[in-house]
Amino acid sequence: MIPIIKVGIVGSTGYSGVELLRLLIHHPQVQIQAITSRAEVGTQVADFFPNLRKHLDLAFVAPISANLVDCDVVFFATPNGTAMKSVPTLLKAGVKVIDLSADFRIKDVSIWQQWYGMEHACPDLLEEAVYGLPEWGREKIAKARLIANPGCYPTAVQLGFLPLLEAGIIDPQHLIADAKSGASGAGRKASVATLMGEMGESFKAYNASGHRHWPEICQTLNEYVKKPVGFTFVPHLVPIIRGIEATLYANLLHEVSLEEIHALFVQRYQNEPFVDVLPAQSHPETRYVRGVNMCQLAVHRPQNQNTVVVLSVIDNLVKGAAGQAIQNMNIMCALPETTGLNGVALLP
Amino acid sequence: MIPIIKVGIVGSTGYSGVELLRLLIHHPQVQIQAITSRAEVGTQVADFFPNLRKHLDLAFVAPISANLVDCDVVFFATPNGTAMKSVPTLLKAGVKVIDLSADFRIKDVSIWQQWYGMEHACPDLLEEAVYGLPEWGREKIAKARLIANPGCYPTAVQLGFLPLLEAGIIDPQHLIADAKSGASGAGRKASVATLMGEMGESFKAYNASGHRHWPEICQTLNEYVKKPVGFTFVPHLVPIIRGIEATLYANLLHEVSLEEIHALFVQRYQNEPFVDVLPAQSHPETRYVRGVNMCQLAVHRPQNQNTVVVLSVIDNLVKGAAGQAIQNMNIMCALPETTGLNGVALLP
Amino acid sequence: MIPIIKVGIVGSTGYSGVELLRLLIHHPQVQIQAITSRAEVGTQVADFFPNLRKHLDLAFVAPISANLVDCDVVFFATPNGTAMKSVPTLLKAGVKVIDLSADFRIKDVSIWQQWYGMEHACPDLLEEAVYGLPEWGREKIAKARLIANPGCYPTAVQLGFLPLLEAGIIDPQHLIADAKSGASGAGRKASVATLMGEMGESFKAYNASGHRHWPEICQTLNEYVKKPVGFTFVPHLVPIIRGIEATLYANLLHEVSLEEIHALFVQRYQNEPFVDVLPAQSHPETRYVRGVNMCQLAVHRPQNQNTVVVLSVIDNLVKGAAGQAIQNMNIMCALPETTGLNGVALLP
Amino acid sequence: MIPIIKVGIVGSTGYSGVELLRLLIHHPQVQIQAITSRAEVGTQVADFFPNLRKHLDLAFVAPISANLVDCDVVFFATPNGTAMKSVPTLLKAGVKVIDLSADFRIKDVSIWQQWYGMEHACPDLLEEAVYGLPEWGREKIAKARLIANPGCYPTAVQLGFLPLLEAGIIDPQHLIADAKSGASGAGRKASVATLMGEMGESFKAYNASGHRHWPEICQTLNEYVKKPVGFTFVPHLVPIIRGIEATLYANLLHEVSLEEIHALFVQRYQNEPFVDVLPAQSHPETRYVRGVNMCQLAVHRPQNQNTVVVLSVIDNLVKGAAGQAIQNMNIMCALPETTGLNGVALLP
Repeated sequence: MIPIIKVGIVGSTGYSGVELLRLLIHHPQVQIQAITSRAEVGTQVADFFPNLRKHLDLAFVAPISANLVDCDVVFFATPNGTAMKSVPTLLKAGVKVIDLSADFRIKDVSIWQQWYGMEHACPDLLEEAVYGLPEWGREKIAKARLIANPGCYPTAVQLGFLPLLEAGIIDPQHLIADAKSGASGAGRKASVATLMGEMGESFKAYNASGHRHWPEICQTLNEYVKKPVGFTFVPHLVPIIRGIEATLYANLLHEVSLEEIHALFVQRYQNEPFVDVLPAQSHPETRYVRGVNMCQLAVHRPQNQNTVVVLSVIDNLVKGAAGQAIQNMNIMCALPETTGLNGVALLP
Repeated sequence: MIPIIKVGIVGSTGYSGVELLRLLIHHPQVQIQAITSRAEVGTQVADFFPNLRKHLDLAFVAPISANLVDCDVVFFATPNGTAMKSVPTLLKAGVKVIDLSADFRIKDVSIWQQWYGMEHACPDLLEEAVYGLPEWGREKIAKARLIANPGCYPTAVQLGFLPLLEAGIIDPQHLIADAKSGASGAGRKASVATLMGEMGESFKAYNASGHRHWPEICQTLNEYVKKPVGFTFVPHLVPIIRGIEATLYANLLHEVSLEEIHALFVQRYQNEPFVDVLPAQSHPETRYVRGVNMCQLAVHRPQNQNTVVVLSVIDNLVKGAAGQAIQNMNIMCALPETTGLNGVALLP
Repeated sequence: MIPIIKVGIVGSTGYSGVELLRLLIHHPQVQIQAITSRAEVGTQVADFFPNLRKHLDLAFVAPISANLVDCDVVFFATPNGTAMKSVPTLLKAGVKVIDLSADFRIKDVSIWQQWYGMEHACPDLLEEAVYGLPEWGREKIAKARLIANPGCYPTAVQLGFLPLLEAGIIDPQHLIADAKSGASGAGRKASVATLMGEMGESFKAYNASGHRHWPEICQTLNEYVKKPVGFTFVPHLVPIIRGIEATLYANLLHEVSLEEIHALFVQRYQNEPFVDVLPAQSHPETRYVRGVNMCQLAVHRPQNQNTVVVLSVIDNLVKGAAGQAIQNMNIMCALPETTGLNGVALLP
Repeated sequence: MIPIIKVGIVGSTGYSGVELLRLLIHHPQVQIQAITSRAEVGTQVADFFPNLRKHLDLAFVAPISANLVDCDVVFFATPNGTAMKSVPTLLKAGVKVIDLSADFRIKDVSIWQQWYGMEHACPDLLEEAVYGLPEWGREKIAKARLIANPGCYPTAVQLGFLPLLEAGIIDPQHLIADAKSGASGAGRKASVATLMGEMGESFKAYNASGHRHWPEICQTLNEYVKKPVGFTFVPHLVPIIRGIEATLYANLLHEVSLEEIHALFVQRYQNEPFVDVLPAQSHPETRYVRGVNMCQLAVHRPQNQNTVVVLSVIDNLVKGAAGQAIQNMNIMCALPETTGLNGVALLP
């Protein structure tokens, strides 16, 4: 008999938090033990998120709770800078931690501090923390105590670029990712910029001169090349709620046909349950993966020029956050990796 | 051991069809046997609806297929006027039929013909057909061979009005339903009116002088009153994809407090798995039920005047179509009513 | 020669403020003198609202500015409770004031204080303030020093109900307005409820048990009936940026044909430049009036029952705010009423 | 006295057509003479497009109309392949023609036929036709009889790349344009792909392996380089109605600072009324130009690497179609170029 995993969620009043709850409620091996929120202690979670009515009978508890230490796994769905303060205590107590924020994603603490604008509370744990992109590091995840769950953009971009870099067929000095995200990527905090009245019926690039996911992506890509990549990353805001589409551009180092490129992707991901390589010249749409832990990829080589184009879509809250976190939990707990993650995308 | 139900779906290239597939794929007692489409014979269903990739390995077959006769249950997700041509044959073969179109919803064939503008192909079956609103007729559904699955607007409106009419506390001569539907209610056929460029960033009433769901709603409401109701129904188009909100207005016949009205709803629906009565003065949102078979209701009595306001939300494709159809199937097949229907709504 | 009107705008970092600027920039008789904002003193207005680049070369100044006293007309596009503090000073200086907030809309100060939750700073001015709905009070507006510009919902609802009440053909005890507004109605302040992630792809009623525009509408309707109206008002939030649609329901007191009702509206508004009565049984759409100072109305009488339905659409920021304010200014300054307001709606 | 220009519009039931009407109605030097539509002969144009009510009192006439020959200027807002059949007749009659379709955009008839899949009806006119991008060819436009109005994507892309190519500071062999368009770019014809239910709440690339605007853009760019450019173009569909954003990527040939690049754009466009260069590192949004004839540009050089990023936004129906067509008309008719085109963008 497989034991039940006792789970705690810290910071669950945001979008990643409610998405973790949605997915964990029907996870057959999980018992949700504690859901914390400093601001909402005592509130029924289902009153706060009425989509959970009839599914969850728990109230928010305070973050510094004995309950957390009793958990087998604790997820942090908190703003950056919060998890790093509590993780050491939990690890000492034998709790496994999966951090959906950025606190443990960057190995070089000076780079982290430069991009996140604060001092790191436990830099000594950065070395141990395992970057949780299962398709490119499943073995380390299985043995980890602390997972840095990848950012949403990095998930979409890395899954698209890595097969090409691993195969050594593209020029690592001229990589471009033009990425687009829905509103939920900005979180569930009051802000003018993500009001319906501001971002509805409009489209824009933002942080074109520098976004925090740039060093994260570079760090991973650099593992597969000899000298640091030349990588340009421009994120954009789409007036939808969920979904990331990344259009990736790279130059072929030598002649490789579209069929060969496609075959490379198919082969690399053939046993992956959560990466789906579409036929060459397809166009994945973010709605094809709405609500599910899946990355759909397609490759193009326009006009047979030497530029290869990879289209990558994910749901930023699932494969880009909560779903991938649960995938990591399954691996860490030696469960079948797809447990609780076999939903069908909501279309239309 | 519970036997597996062999299911066929006719007309599955539309939104109700793909929603049936999404829900049935993970229904533990169902085996999808045949998916028909005249236009797409031979096409992999998952190529047509890429959200089904990795979940479904079936191709569309022709509608007039021996496969259908082998099924235990056949769903029609076809345009109005199609099901009535095939249903007699299937019933004779012992197949149970659940029709998501309007062909068997109206008992009076002359009224049907007036509103649907065609001759009925099998008026003799109208008497036998059971209107599939489980909360108000579960017993008949359990014994039925042929279910007329309710319209989307009627589901939202009837679930809100019926407790009040049954209790006899409102004036049946002045009932108003101001209802709003997302774009998927208009189906997945090419049309100018439902282009993004036409209905995006806009809002309108339509068919204010007469909509086909008016006689359907009247027929049900009339069962609970002595003389025919006076009912005004104005539908509106909201630039969202899924969701219906109906705001219902009725005049109290005598003094009943808001607390009493709320208690009436709570009591009437307390054992219903798919109707959720919110606290009085709540405001259900369509997103609270996105993707799930649920109707959320809330009552108001503004300024303590004699008008009672009921707010009712459903997902038009689930409780308003495919989900309710599966709920009916479960009842007809003596399965627990919630089998395969226990998802959590996708929020945000 | 017509003199140029020197105009000041207080609180112009919100949606009504930028809409006033958009319309006034091309008003041939207006010179924009001062644009105030406590928070943005010194910022170029066109840096704050880049749609004004190449059109406006002014920086925000502090609200307590000598500039305002030099103006002929000052618009307040401020949150409720702000205008009432400055208006007495401006009036004393001979400045005409048009207040787009709610400070002077309600004659009965106790009702105002109950609904707006604060003490009124200058209740003595309430009597003098003129409610600025030109189609129903143009003469008083022409002579006014202080205009209470109507709320957005009240404009749409009153223009639809008043012809029927004036004609005495509907029962004033059972009036219902089911109204829907886009996101800009909630203003341009950071808030969770109007985030794209919260209100996108969803629809809901709000404040169904009581909204501040209810007493404002009642006050106006009561002028046309003998005893206070029985009026139910339920507002809803539509995931669009601009636009209000109000669907109005009333019971006929005696037989009046749809043609007669339509003729009544046509006659009442035949000389009105900013009210457009569509053919009977039409369905106005909010996009038909996007960006323009127009109310489109259409009447229905479904199934020839005794309920009359009026459909009313406006752009909440134009006929529901800034456009109507300029219409009032034109009247106060003896300009042709349409000056600067003859744009064509942006469709699609 | 400036004479009035008599204008005809062919194919005005689409989005470019109604946008031409919106802009021409208030053009002080234009009289709209004939609006043609094969399908809608006799219908009042304002009944078809109710935003034109109270502004236009004309009915659609048949395309083959004597009226057209009497016009000074005729705009074609027709599907590709229509204008080329009528243009020779009109030119012979001394009418100036501005074609908003693609019929005269490509000089090489074999390339045109390859991409548009039909035979050209008057290839002899291709040489004479002038590509109507005023900022890069005003002189030829002034003398032209026949204008090929640029495509929407090409306008946004060319205005962003040309200053860099003209200055010779980027590598013409690795140009990338990642472009995004709203739904109106697909026109106002019934289609499944642009239904609200299909493209709402979703984002996708399309035609990534080849889009008709690719050869058009290449043709223009090639005029400024020695050997044909290497250009990759991937268009995407955004769930908005109006707006194009193009994010352009190019590699610097040698060190040029961001300030120098910005200065280059400022200088090149300093006298242009319809190109607005934002401060370096700005992020133009499509809503900043909604409804107006403007291209906003901003430049970035992320992480000081050698990739320069240009952000370009237009309203696809204005600077990308109808507005640019009127700008061309003004030039052809020796009017001030901004006549009738000085509107302020609708924000929010």
